[in-house]
Amino acid sequence: MNEQDIAVLEAVLSCHSYISGSSNASQADAQIYGALLDKLPNTPPSVVRWAQHMASYSPQQRQLFPQHTNVQSCGDAKVDQQLNSLLQKAILKQKQESSKNISTTTQRDVSPAKHERVSQNSLSPSRKPSKSGSSKGGKLILKTAKGTRDYHPAEMAVRRTVFDKIKSVFHMHGAVEIETPVFELKEVLTGKYGEDSKLIYDLEDQGGELLSLRYDLTVPFARYVAQNKIDNISRYHIARVYRRDNPAITRGRYREFYQCDFDIAGAYDLMLPDAECLQVIHQVLASLDLGLFTIKVNHRKLLDGLFGACGVPIEKFRSICSAVDKLDKSSWCEVRAEMIGEKGLDEAVADRIGEYVKLNGKQDLLNTLKNDDRLKTNEDAQAGIEELELLLQYTSLLQCDANLLIDMSLARGLDYYTGVIYEAILQEGQVPQQQQESDNSKKKSKKDEEDDGGTVGSVAGGGRYDNLVGMFDPKKRTVPCVGVSFGIERLFAIQERKLKLQDRKLRSRLTSVYVAGVCKGMLHHRLTLCALLHEAEISAETSRKINPKFLTQLQYAEENGIPLVVTIGDSEVSEGVVNVRNTSTRQEEKVPRDQLIQHLKQLLPQL
Amino acid sequence: MNEQDIAVLEAVLSCHSYISGSSNASQADAQIYGALLDKLPNTPPSVVRWAQHMASYSPQQRQLFPQHTNVQSCGDAKVDQQLNSLLQKAILKQKQESSKNISTTTQRDVSPAKHERVSQNSLSPSRKPSKSGSSKGGKLILKTAKGTRDYHPAEMAVRRTVFDKIKSVFHMHGAVEIETPVFELKEVLTGKYGEDSKLIYDLEDQGGELLSLRYDLTVPFARYVAQNKIDNISRYHIARVYRRDNPAITRGRYREFYQCDFDIAGAYDLMLPDAECLQVIHQVLASLDLGLFTIKVNHRKLLDGLFGACGVPIEKFRSICSAVDKLDKSSWCEVRAEMIGEKGLDEAVADRIGEYVKLNGKQDLLNTLKNDDRLKTNEDAQAGIEELELLLQYTSLLQCDANLLIDMSLARGLDYYTGVIYEAILQEGQVPQQQQESDNSKKKSKKDEEDDGGTVGSVAGGGRYDNLVGMFDPKKRTVPCVGVSFGIERLFAIQERKLKLQDRKLRSRLTSVYVAGVCKGMLHHRLTLCALLHEAEISAETSRKINPKFLTQLQYAEENGIPLVVTIGDSEVSEGVVNVRNTSTRQEEKVPRDQLIQHLKQLLPQL
Repeated sequence: MNEQDIAVLEAVLSCHSYISGSSNASQADAQIYGALLDKLPNTPPSVVRWAQHMASYSPQQRQLFPQHTNVQSCGDAKVDQQLNSLLQKAILKQKQESSKNISTTTQRDVSPAKHERVSQNSLSPSRKPSKSGSSKGGKLILKTAKGTRDYHPAEMAVRRTVFDKIKSVFHMHGAVEIETPVFELKEVLTGKYGEDSKLIYDLEDQGGELLSLRYDLTVPFARYVAQNKIDNISRYHIARVYRRDNPAITRGRYREFYQCDFDIAGAYDLMLPDAECLQVIHQVLASLDLGLFTIKVNHRKLLDGLFGACGVPIEKFRSICSAVDKLDKSSWCEVRAEMIGEKGLDEAVADRIGEYVKLNGKQDLLNTLKNDDRLKTNEDAQAGIEELELLLQYTSLLQCDANLLIDMSLARGLDYYTGVIYEAILQEGQVPQQQQESDNSKKKSKKDEEDDGGTVGSVAGGGRYDNLVGMFDPKKRTVPCVGVSFGIERLFAIQERKLKLQDRKLRSRLTSVYVAGVCKGMLHHRLTLCALLHEAEISAETSRKINPKFLTQLQYAEENGIPLVVTIGDSEVSEGVVNVRNTSTRQEEKVPRDQLIQHLKQLLPQL
Repeated sequence: MNEQDIAVLEAVLSCHSYISGSSNASQADAQIYGALLDKLPNTPPSVVRWAQHMASYSPQQRQLFPQHTNVQSCGDAKVDQQLNSLLQKAILKQKQESSKNISTTTQRDVSPAKHERVSQNSLSPSRKPSKSGSSKGGKLILKTAKGTRDYHPAEMAVRRTVFDKIKSVFHMHGAVEIETPVFELKEVLTGKYGEDSKLIYDLEDQGGELLSLRYDLTVPFARYVAQNKIDNISRYHIARVYRRDNPAITRGRYREFYQCDFDIAGAYDLMLPDAECLQVIHQVLASLDLGLFTIKVNHRKLLDGLFGACGVPIEKFRSICSAVDKLDKSSWCEVRAEMIGEKGLDEAVADRIGEYVKLNGKQDLLNTLKNDDRLKTNEDAQAGIEELELLLQYTSLLQCDANLLIDMSLARGLDYYTGVIYEAILQEGQVPQQQQESDNSKKKSKKDEEDDGGTVGSVAGGGRYDNLVGMFDPKKRTVPCVGVSFGIERLFAIQERKLKLQDRKLRSRLTSVYVAGVCKGMLHHRLTLCALLHEAEISAETSRKINPKFLTQLQYAEENGIPLVVTIGDSEVSEGVVNVRNTSTRQEEKVPRDQLIQHLKQLLPQL
């Protein structure tokens, strides 16, 4: 079904409740609906409404719809004809498919309302628990939802180390932790993300509030600050966010992914919290040992001033800003073309902008801009420059300015930034490619990057947003904020890659001692020893078999990197000793049972 | 609108698409829909379908529906009359409300399909970001979703300590950690929770897969084991789950709440993993220092054997089991009445069951049951008794049997248990009442308890479920499992209560040192000192104001429990020293700047 077909449907359904124009659903509806199934996301409103109505019938019920007699559109013969041919196509397609013996029950057809209805007959899958994992003609669908994944133990171990390092930096700054619900009232998110709002996951209206899964942690944070009437807080929040985006698993882009945010809310003196955020980025990236990185910095006031001074009309500031934002992926030529063509900017204005956006540097750059003929009389630009100068001073005192670069091409995607903006980028060749990218298009959509915090190679991004809390506060009380979000999924991937290159594996289990029986009949001794070790807070495992083979037990300890094995057999029992075996050296030592704990407590810290 | 009204609607809508019986929506639909809004959750299928259809119109669109001419039901005069009176009521209600000047735009009326349509005129809230937080006639709705809450820093600190203790017990047993997505394909959850399936949160069908938020961590775990073809794993998983239940915030029952699960999957020898789970419960509760607790244990085979021996027909095993399950809340009289009345059991059979379910004990009880006339020839019962005997032996060796009690009245709600079941209960008077319970009904629904892991006072529960993984495996490969789930929200509440009683407060920020300026102009020195301290991995904060008042700074350190303050003023600068101030004793000490780190590293561990 193509776009024209859908336009025909929209024409029909905008004046009729059902395809055939009659007052009840017929086979025409069932057949068109069947053909439409894979097209629903981008369909126009009347078709969507009709389709939702259709979806509320079970497939079985739809099969029982009466045959349609004639198909009448809104009196337009051409539309009538198109609709009829559409219907023929749909019927044909359905016949072909049923001849392939594919069940017509698709995933889409399972909804609570239908279950209730279908359960009146015996076809309901929900009444047959043993088959509930199956659908699509009996084939089992055993997968996680599109764009999501399970974290396996080894991945969790990597994640733990990354989180621990990041958290310890946050704690270094006295940040507190908060957590907000995974979903918010839909209206909390409405109007915050511009075009990307279409990527928000909505919950089904089940007769309560309308809810959406959080899209980021910043908007819930602003809601939190407003709702709790907080004047100042530095908080961190590590949690997953949800975007119904096109997943690109090979590039580490998921629909469910972690964000790790540090934000400072409160009215403080100029650039002090901003410098602290840059310090946090510096400290996190240094602590993760990621090699060389650059923290690009810019200022929205400077950008706006620049646009104004170059002759961009005020109403085009944001759209020109988002064009500049593409410079990390596209050439100036392309961006210039977009400014002139798509955004209707004068060529001369675009060229003036072009002179500036290629500039970067530190105090030298600021000196140049301060004295620039166009900018020196522009208040916005001068204010931005002054703030950046202060920022350079503070970051120098905080010893985190080494990797800083003021870059006039940095613009950041989100609308809500009002001051300093920044983005941290790992240097080329350091970002591991998880897999050969099959992406042929040179230019990636901006959405690709937002997930990761910015450009490819970007691992953190953020800036100042002084007006977001005010959008929630009933009295429009504003609380200035500045913050940074780390592209945690990418940092995980980099750490995993590093470990792989070093041929190292993080232990996903933290057992110190494995208790092994040398011969049969040792179960009671093994359990008693485990209890003894646990009592002393030494992590210890033993086989959950009554008489496991000795070698199997040793092998388990080796495979799972358990450093020590306590072995016991008949002779050890009679002597009142155990053997303590070092898994890596395979050396054994006899230890009296009453000295075992003391012995292990000395030994373990050295391993 | 009462239940009878809804039954009338169901009668009408099961044969008509619209209320008026005509082929298009009319004001009758709009008015009835308006009156129905707060009733949707429990409505019958045709009404649900119609209501979903209505919901797909915006309020503005519904206002434009034509007036209905006459209302006709399916030819039944009585239904006609009832429908008409219903309609009159609805119209009256609407008039009353609009006279109260309440906006007719309710929360329900915001949905993406509608936005698209409404945005054609200027009424769309989504086009006015600055007002997007407002609705309901301009009143701001600034809240978290029903039954959810934010975790504040102090709560997060308590949570952290509870999680850390629990995790360290899990690690003691060599458990690994996994994480699964917050939502699953809807069909993964279908048929796993019986009646409670209605509490599952579904995501809106946005043209992809049908998804639901996870209801617990057990079913996703079984899916994980099956999908990844895992033979054995002991894993833990700490995450939030979602139940569209009636929240009871004062009792700590939420719609979004943490579960903390430890499970052992794999074919091991009888009762060894089961004993380990009891050991884990014992260790966790002991480590959290919760006072006296009892771990009640029973066995589904013993229960089934008992039912069989008492004369319960096999098809009533599960329903009688769920009646027994109520004995923790209801008297035997009530449960007996339910068995006889509701479940149709013979009085004599019920009375025989009554003799058994009041029994509890340890080996003594098992001895009694082993030789019981009715049970000694019952294979199921004898198998259950044997397994419980083994379990007592193993838990004794593991030194976690002190608080164990085999309790014949323990039945557990969930259907999927196949063997040992257990529940840990804190002893009376130890469970803090968060607030005077306003619940007048003596008997609480079973759902009340499931959230918390079992009965009121219950803090953990679980059992063996050998068939769940097989429900997911394409080849029906089974992986036996046993596990425990901790009622984490309750454990948080108990810890918070304990801290409050002890008048203690956990520090939500972990700053060790506050750097304070004695006089003006110290900013540069303060920032440099912070950088120095951070470099040495000492957490340090300083004011984000250029010239904060000295006393304000000291006060901040005191209020936030920061143990040391490093103060610096002009004279300290010229002498090359700083003052190190102990926040609690208020004693100060002069320390040369180059010895500061060393000094602090010695001092801090003692504080």
